[in-house]
Amino acid sequence: MTATPAEFEARLRRIGAERYHDKHPFHDLLHGGGCTPDQVRAWVINRFYYQASIPMKDAAFMSRVDDPALRRAWRSRIEDHDGTDEVEGGIARWLHLADAVGLDRDYVASARGVLPATRFAVDAYVRFVRDKTLLEAVAASLTELFAPKIHAARIEGLMANYAFADDTSLSYFRNRLTQAPKDVAFGLGWVLEHADTAEKQDAAAAALEFKTDVLWAQLDALHAAYVTPARIPPGAWVPGSYVLTPAS
Amino acid sequence: MTATPAEFEARLRRIGAERYHDKHPFHDLLHGGGCTPDQVRAWVINRFYYQASIPMKDAAFMSRVDDPALRRAWRSRIEDHDGTDEVEGGIARWLHLADAVGLDRDYVASARGVLPATRFAVDAYVRFVRDKTLLEAVAASLTELFAPKIHAARIEGLMANYAFADDTSLSYFRNRLTQAPKDVAFGLGWVLEHADTAEKQDAAAAALEFKTDVLWAQLDALHAAYVTPARIPPGAWVPGSYVLTPAS
Repeated sequence: MTATPAEFEARLRRIGAERYHDKHPFHDLLHGGGCTPDQVRAWVINRFYYQASIPMKDAAFMSRVDDPALRRAWRSRIEDHDGTDEVEGGIARWLHLADAVGLDRDYVASARGVLPATRFAVDAYVRFVRDKTLLEAVAASLTELFAPKIHAARIEGLMANYAFADDTSLSYFRNRLTQAPKDVAFGLGWVLEHADTAEKQDAAAAALEFKTDVLWAQLDALHAAYVTPARIPPGAWVPGSYVLTPAS
Repeated sequence: MTATPAEFEARLRRIGAERYHDKHPFHDLLHGGGCTPDQVRAWVINRFYYQASIPMKDAAFMSRVDDPALRRAWRSRIEDHDGTDEVEGGIARWLHLADAVGLDRDYVASARGVLPATRFAVDAYVRFVRDKTLLEAVAASLTELFAPKIHAARIEGLMANYAFADDTSLSYFRNRLTQAPKDVAFGLGWVLEHADTAEKQDAAAAALEFKTDVLWAQLDALHAAYVTPARIPPGAWVPGSYVLTPAS
């Protein structure tokens, strides 16, 4: 039976309550100040690969949309990450964070030390958006519903616990506090309007679950590789390497 | 500079010596009898997803080959996994293993409880073969160079340490002892012949490294989810569920 938009929105929000990665223990460690400098660096290196892939995901989506109005509504996501001539984008802001934690920014930008599992999960998201229905692609983006809370907690936790945290290094997260709600208001409205059968609602809910898996798997891989008992897979970043400035 | 075939083969074998998943601690645990019944089950459930995807990978490869002789040489791989009217294939043999460890074989075949990280890694392999050059696709299959040794160690270790191990439950591995060398002799010859520039040799070596990442990431995910300190991601198999017969 098709749920009402309000019921369906509640279903989507329950997925976040049950599966969003704010419940992963790595975030407790990171936000609570429990990470070593190298664990923070491993997070910065791996999460960069996700950030850097998001505009490719959005371009894959737009490449399949024949409605100029929908493409126009979506386009700002790419600008937010890639920047404009005047304004720095999210990827450049993330590299400020790489600078602040003492990493060689060229190494981070090269994505050479990224965990294979991070790469597999992120690439799966880009391909999902390329291959699935537009409804599933938009629904997968709705993890942004749950992002502002974690970004606020992250800014507060990092500022309280790490010397590298300041307005420059955390500018990525501050900007997302305003960008994500704008994006998700549009995406949520679009999904609620277009998921007009029970079958489509199930597909959209499954897409959102898939996306929570993509985020969770990244933290699982990070935790297994760099937190006790750490086991770094062959080829991934080795703590201490590509560090330019001492920890602070 | 282009290496000679013998030098290039040595380079490929070094990749196995350094990165093949026989060096992953989960295999020590499994082959040494250190796994609990539920840890064995988790391995059976997750590794099934890999086995079941291999014929899709091979079909993706054949869909891109315009040489009937090469397709003919490759086709037996699909038969080996899917079976014929007379002979059971590798996927059916894997389900004997599922029976033997007491799992509901329909649940295993459904792949519902597979770890998202397993899915991301395996799907990445299928897509790699679909998207990259034929040389890279064949080179990625060369982890089979290193497989007979691990299959022999597995048969010996499982027989010595677990009551479920017998000729029926381990028939998948016994068959691979003869199938893998036949496949890899062809694949290795093909790669050595076609990787005739330094650039192609680098691409083929990178493809083999990618494949070792695919295998390693599956065991990392399994270890993180089901071995101490176990942390099962949302939606994945929960120990004790879908178990039909007691552990032995």
